[in-house]
Amino acid sequence: MAKRVINFYAGPAALPLPALERAQAELLDFENTGMSVMEISHRAKEYDAVHNEAIALIKELLNVPDNYKVLFLQGGGNLQFAMLPMNILHSGRKADYIVTGSWAKKAFKEAQIVAGDAARCIASTEGEKFTRLPKPAEIKVNTDAAYVHICTNNTIYGTQWKEFPKTGNIPIAADMSSDFMWRPFDVKPFGFIYAGAQKNLGPSGLVVAIIRDDFLEMCSDKLPTMLQYKIHAEKNSLYNTPPCFSIYILRNVLMYNKQIGGLDAIYKNNLKKGELLYGMIDKYPDFYRGYVKVKEDRSFMNVDFNLPSEELDAKFVSEAKKAGMVGLKGYRTLGGIRVSMYNAVTVAQIETLCGFMEEFVKKA
Amino acid sequence: MAKRVINFYAGPAALPLPALERAQAELLDFENTGMSVMEISHRAKEYDAVHNEAIALIKELLNVPDNYKVLFLQGGGNLQFAMLPMNILHSGRKADYIVTGSWAKKAFKEAQIVAGDAARCIASTEGEKFTRLPKPAEIKVNTDAAYVHICTNNTIYGTQWKEFPKTGNIPIAADMSSDFMWRPFDVKPFGFIYAGAQKNLGPSGLVVAIIRDDFLEMCSDKLPTMLQYKIHAEKNSLYNTPPCFSIYILRNVLMYNKQIGGLDAIYKNNLKKGELLYGMIDKYPDFYRGYVKVKEDRSFMNVDFNLPSEELDAKFVSEAKKAGMVGLKGYRTLGGIRVSMYNAVTVAQIETLCGFMEEFVKKA
Repeated sequence: MAKRVINFYAGPAALPLPALERAQAELLDFENTGMSVMEISHRAKEYDAVHNEAIALIKELLNVPDNYKVLFLQGGGNLQFAMLPMNILHSGRKADYIVTGSWAKKAFKEAQIVAGDAARCIASTEGEKFTRLPKPAEIKVNTDAAYVHICTNNTIYGTQWKEFPKTGNIPIAADMSSDFMWRPFDVKPFGFIYAGAQKNLGPSGLVVAIIRDDFLEMCSDKLPTMLQYKIHAEKNSLYNTPPCFSIYILRNVLMYNKQIGGLDAIYKNNLKKGELLYGMIDKYPDFYRGYVKVKEDRSFMNVDFNLPSEELDAKFVSEAKKAGMVGLKGYRTLGGIRVSMYNAVTVAQIETLCGFMEEFVKKA
Repeated sequence: MAKRVINFYAGPAALPLPALERAQAELLDFENTGMSVMEISHRAKEYDAVHNEAIALIKELLNVPDNYKVLFLQGGGNLQFAMLPMNILHSGRKADYIVTGSWAKKAFKEAQIVAGDAARCIASTEGEKFTRLPKPAEIKVNTDAAYVHICTNNTIYGTQWKEFPKTGNIPIAADMSSDFMWRPFDVKPFGFIYAGAQKNLGPSGLVVAIIRDDFLEMCSDKLPTMLQYKIHAEKNSLYNTPPCFSIYILRNVLMYNKQIGGLDAIYKNNLKKGELLYGMIDKYPDFYRGYVKVKEDRSFMNVDFNLPSEELDAKFVSEAKKAGMVGLKGYRTLGGIRVSMYNAVTVAQIETLCGFMEEFVKKA
């Protein structure tokens, strides 16, 4: 038996053990093909089944309506920051951006590189160091916006949209890299959803995207082929060789997610994990000093807090490591501690962390 | 023991068994971290060591001069078809393209999308259905070209440049996706080399690139960040999360390549494989009808031939499969048989194939 740690990395991050065990068992011989899934042509029927099963599981688990297509893309969320405005912001179209953290800000910056002033920031909490999300009254969507871009979970600052902004008929375009499928949600207000797989879904090198047919219709066909969403949609994400192994691991993760009860069960676990960890933070608020200032904005995926001194931060990280918990060091500009508890982190693991935190307060 | 087949797929393709066995053994616990390499942050020292070892092995095995940088990119060769002209063909610069097959033609087409008439086709063998490469006298490089683009091995048509075109001071930019590191070669005439990993190097979802410092200097800094070679070079290909697991498998493959004697030993094997297979084809030229018309242009990576009838083609594929050999069906527009024998295909496997071919002629 492999000795496993409790993994709180922010991404790449923990994956469900059964998904990895399956990959290990068939790494040299995938379903009696006599080949690793890495060695099989992306045009072969054996790979095709994996590819289409992954797409079908996303549709099923998220209850994706028929007027959406699931895409597998490359280049991380970062390339989507540029591809989205390249595809949509032509023919005089404009878009609105809500800036709630580092990634949301990068998305806006890339849109400015692509489309200049056609990309507009309509709300930002940067002046408050991203310690909260904008309130509904602070968001005024332009009626001529082709989309409103948000980042649903701010990995670095630890805020998360529980209710998405009301944009009327204007489609939302969302970077969901760090909380995609953390719970069921209504896909219909979204024109475009994208998520780097390496947090909640699978290995790095794969982006899962969902695009609505009317949004796809707006996309440019004048771009280099690989940058056109239309091409990837027409070719079922097989225009060129996709990241087959990453898609295979995604498929394994989604199968596991279905088996444990789908997104309802996962959501229940995630709520419980948040309740436990924020319960501990709120029990000792002078010791575990949460970064986010508005409780309802706190993320169930990434939890940032600082201890009373940098020495205690460092001691916390090193003692946790001795207790089998890794990845807790805070983001470099924030210091302190960051607990990333994506879907694959279990309630029991958060209980272990909370037990450690309780002891740590007492000893300090 | 996993039962393995002889894998002649054109890509994704066979990988060296020891590279896969290592991945399997440590899939749940990479070097006593208690995590899969897929689950480790790309900012962690454990991943960093893998990343830098892969880069160092490419430099060592290929004897890459110090004025080159090795990059890990995403989006396959296809995205490079566009990124290369986006980065270089600004400020009035022009480039020359030599069109020798489907991928070379796509590269030219993407350059036209990006740069219009600044991309020029200076030689093509399309009129002869790509059955040969252009002769030196047919290639007239423009003196104002910023680069001359070639595809070093034509996966579909089965031609391969053994001697690269003489371009004087003008750097060559080369798509080496299907024959990168099949032998040692002098990197110095090249400004830019790129290769999708999924043929000779590792899993899909990873592009290995080598860029010369003066070529890098010419690259645009006005593009979206992810499309700038300069950013990837400055950040050691860690601007965003790279395809970590694919890089890890690449590292395993390169370690194995080094262990078996480096590129000299690999070249020797590849020459032997070519000698055996072309020997068999030339022994029965009326039965195994090679697609390529000029012997010195024949590829040591992909070998295309047609049997006297489509029925015999199909019978060949199906009987080979029964004998444990897969991936032999020819490309859809060419029909017939394609044998892809990248580095991981052994001399013994080609001997087995040749034995089968000899028997097949006799029975037919």
